[in-house]
Amino acid sequence: MRFSPLVEQLMDAFRVLPGVGPKTAQRMAMHLLERERPGGQRLAAVIQQAIEEVGYCQRCRTLTEAEVCLLCESPRRDDALLCVVESPADQLAIEEAGGFKGRYFVLHGHLSPLDGIGPESIGLDLLEARVAEGLVEEVVLATNPTIEGEATAHYIASQLAEYGVKLSRLAYGVPMGGELEYVDGGTLSRAFNGRLPFASE
Amino acid sequence: MRFSPLVEQLMDAFRVLPGVGPKTAQRMAMHLLERERPGGQRLAAVIQQAIEEVGYCQRCRTLTEAEVCLLCESPRRDDALLCVVESPADQLAIEEAGGFKGRYFVLHGHLSPLDGIGPESIGLDLLEARVAEGLVEEVVLATNPTIEGEATAHYIASQLAEYGVKLSRLAYGVPMGGELEYVDGGTLSRAFNGRLPFASE
Repeated sequence: MRFSPLVEQLMDAFRVLPGVGPKTAQRMAMHLLERERPGGQRLAAVIQQAIEEVGYCQRCRTLTEAEVCLLCESPRRDDALLCVVESPADQLAIEEAGGFKGRYFVLHGHLSPLDGIGPESIGLDLLEARVAEGLVEEVVLATNPTIEGEATAHYIASQLAEYGVKLSRLAYGVPMGGELEYVDGGTLSRAFNGRLPFASE
Repeated sequence: MRFSPLVEQLMDAFRVLPGVGPKTAQRMAMHLLERERPGGQRLAAVIQQAIEEVGYCQRCRTLTEAEVCLLCESPRRDDALLCVVESPADQLAIEEAGGFKGRYFVLHGHLSPLDGIGPESIGLDLLEARVAEGLVEEVVLATNPTIEGEATAHYIASQLAEYGVKLSRLAYGVPMGGELEYVDGGTLSRAFNGRLPFASE
């Protein structure tokens, strides 16, 4: 069965969303048309407006419709600590974990010369200028623990070497709450090599 | 952490979609803004257009932007068989199962006097007019096997009694491919009471 062209188009359009296959897209289209027209209208308007107005923070490059994001403007964050992440989603994950009270810098990707993504595409000129201001004392390189993330961290480290800031990387090891049995070999080796003295309190 | 107001609004707006909680809504918002702006723009435009233009087929009340839907217009369906369903999603499920070659009538709900949903709210006047045309020989009452669905089926049956059409209801029983162990008691009792002679071929 084919629905009318516009209903079919609506089902197709939902498939741009992550994790949405044909069945879920159908369910979403039906739900909006049958029970949530006001919510759907609002969703359409907000998507439209956000796509037009949301850009990058001029200071940290996270997503914002303002010139400078709320976190960069907050007086309660520590200017001496700067955490470099690949995406706003990573920034969000770190914020939700709590504990880090410094500032962020968002790359929106990682270096990938073969795809034409060089240092300026991920804002490294802006990052260098930020560190050159002299307030930052430590840069936490929180890029992903992947080959590309590692390479990007190394590139940034060499770029910032001349400024004499402390550079750090997130610790590697076994994730909390998991079972060793299911941890991959690479992670286990890293955790062994980085083992710590047992502290009983 | 709060994102900028517009980004937060976008995350909130996605929660009108079925099965989308805060985490998924975040992921959808990030995905659209980071990687899928053209697809997002298209999604917004199609939602907007569909909400404005998609209404009910004048003949069967399914969702369509046309006056009469494709299925009602098709010359290859059997006018003598009419299947009454609660929603376009039910109609879609039956179509995808294949086998039924008649027409449909979509109620968009079931009778619910306490909520002010009476016969005309679910199009029963239109359904009666359709049967009164005289082409329909059998009405399959495929409302949900719930208390409300049953009550609605009974109401329709009494409403259509005077027209002398054959009335049927989907068979109740154990679902195919499942394990008896997991079938609920009500369904098992129904399946026992409705047991059929074993046909070995």
